[in-house]
Amino acid sequence: MPRYLLTVEYVGTDYHGFQRQAGLATVQGALEQAITAFTGMEVHVQGAGRTDAGVHAVGQAAAFDLPVEVDAGQYRASLNALLPKGVAATAMDLVREGFDPRREAAWREYRYFILNRRAPSPVLEAYAHHVPKRLDRSLMGEACALFTGDHDFSAFRVKGGPDEANVRRVLECELTEPYPDLLCFRVRATAFLYRMVRIMAGAIKAVGCGRMEPGELERHLLGGEKPCADPLPARGLFLWQVSYPGEIYLRK
Amino acid sequence: MPRYLLTVEYVGTDYHGFQRQAGLATVQGALEQAITAFTGMEVHVQGAGRTDAGVHAVGQAAAFDLPVEVDAGQYRASLNALLPKGVAATAMDLVREGFDPRREAAWREYRYFILNRRAPSPVLEAYAHHVPKRLDRSLMGEACALFTGDHDFSAFRVKGGPDEANVRRVLECELTEPYPDLLCFRVRATAFLYRMVRIMAGAIKAVGCGRMEPGELERHLLGGEKPCADPLPARGLFLWQVSYPGEIYLRK
Repeated sequence: MPRYLLTVEYVGTDYHGFQRQAGLATVQGALEQAITAFTGMEVHVQGAGRTDAGVHAVGQAAAFDLPVEVDAGQYRASLNALLPKGVAATAMDLVREGFDPRREAAWREYRYFILNRRAPSPVLEAYAHHVPKRLDRSLMGEACALFTGDHDFSAFRVKGGPDEANVRRVLECELTEPYPDLLCFRVRATAFLYRMVRIMAGAIKAVGCGRMEPGELERHLLGGEKPCADPLPARGLFLWQVSYPGEIYLRK
Repeated sequence: MPRYLLTVEYVGTDYHGFQRQAGLATVQGALEQAITAFTGMEVHVQGAGRTDAGVHAVGQAAAFDLPVEVDAGQYRASLNALLPKGVAATAMDLVREGFDPRREAAWREYRYFILNRRAPSPVLEAYAHHVPKRLDRSLMGEACALFTGDHDFSAFRVKGGPDEANVRRVLECELTEPYPDLLCFRVRATAFLYRMVRIMAGAIKAVGCGRMEPGELERHLLGGEKPCADPLPARGLFLWQVSYPGEIYLRK
């Protein structure tokens, strides 16, 4: 059967996370309902990974089978007309049969936004974590560099996800300031552990507050029994992109 | 009496514009209620200008008198605790008596955001106007340059505001792309006519669509009886900053 890969954007505030849960509004549930309504047969959607309640996405990936090949551009537009407020498909590509969006991802990128100024921002209320106290941004930037490479991230996870080895490869990690006082913690890795980005962002915030020395952060990257920092709130977190090798696409 | 200048941020979606209207939620009304509740006496707030229903602000300016001098930082924080969702004071400064935030503004800057890609964006739904058809961005950028300088903007206004001469001085006007496919029309002028920015943005969009030649836009800048383009929707528009000469501040 023809298999399709959707790129999905959503406002996490509106949903109880990505994964389907009986009786709750979830992104997977919304996608499956819309595709099922459009296609007239029950369709199962497979995501690249779960996101927690409140976490946003501009580039979540989700795959599903259709009984026949369709015009992907038209199908995507029709799907958006059926999807509820707060979720939309931004791209749709034909991929090879049996494609697994979770296992075949080359890397994922997350961005965590922190508003670092005294006053709150009504405009960014749903999209950034507010830290009124002035953070040491250059120290935070230096600390980001410590994350790159292969590390044991067992001090940067919450138990509760599937059990797995804790070594992960971070390809890129940096702190940018896309608008004055709006900080963006950007991290790209082959894969992430449960709550890993929010705990990494929490550790970087602790460095910026002077509550954690960069040397201490380095020691946490050798392993640990429990999270080395509190995870920051969901509202600041965006699943930004999931990248796949070119060969999965049957036509671009 | 000591006079204070507030910098105000708000989500326009939540309000029927800036200006007080009986029985409707407005930004001016929300500010006056909160200050009155805090101060224990009726306080009148004067804005730098009106914004229409649905228009956002990150840098609206509003002035008011208090019976005694206060600690502006503390007062601002307490005020934010009393203000409803969607509006916040981001700065508060002591200014000289009789200061008029409308007449004394040196310039105002507005930004209009256009999402130019096929798919809608749930994340930017409230903050950008969606144009699915590909716009000619370099032509739009060139057209922006035509706006700078002194022009008769009578073809870029809707009647309904106070009657006034139609010549305005545009100090800066450009098109930027802060994120891929997110266009920002930025314009700074000494003052604006009613709906002027939304009609300017509409004309720039018309240029980008190929519906208006840059030469035609130039002719509209010589004057006209009616608006030369439809105003774009309120949701994409932000009052970004109102700037005052340094001498109005009693301490910085």
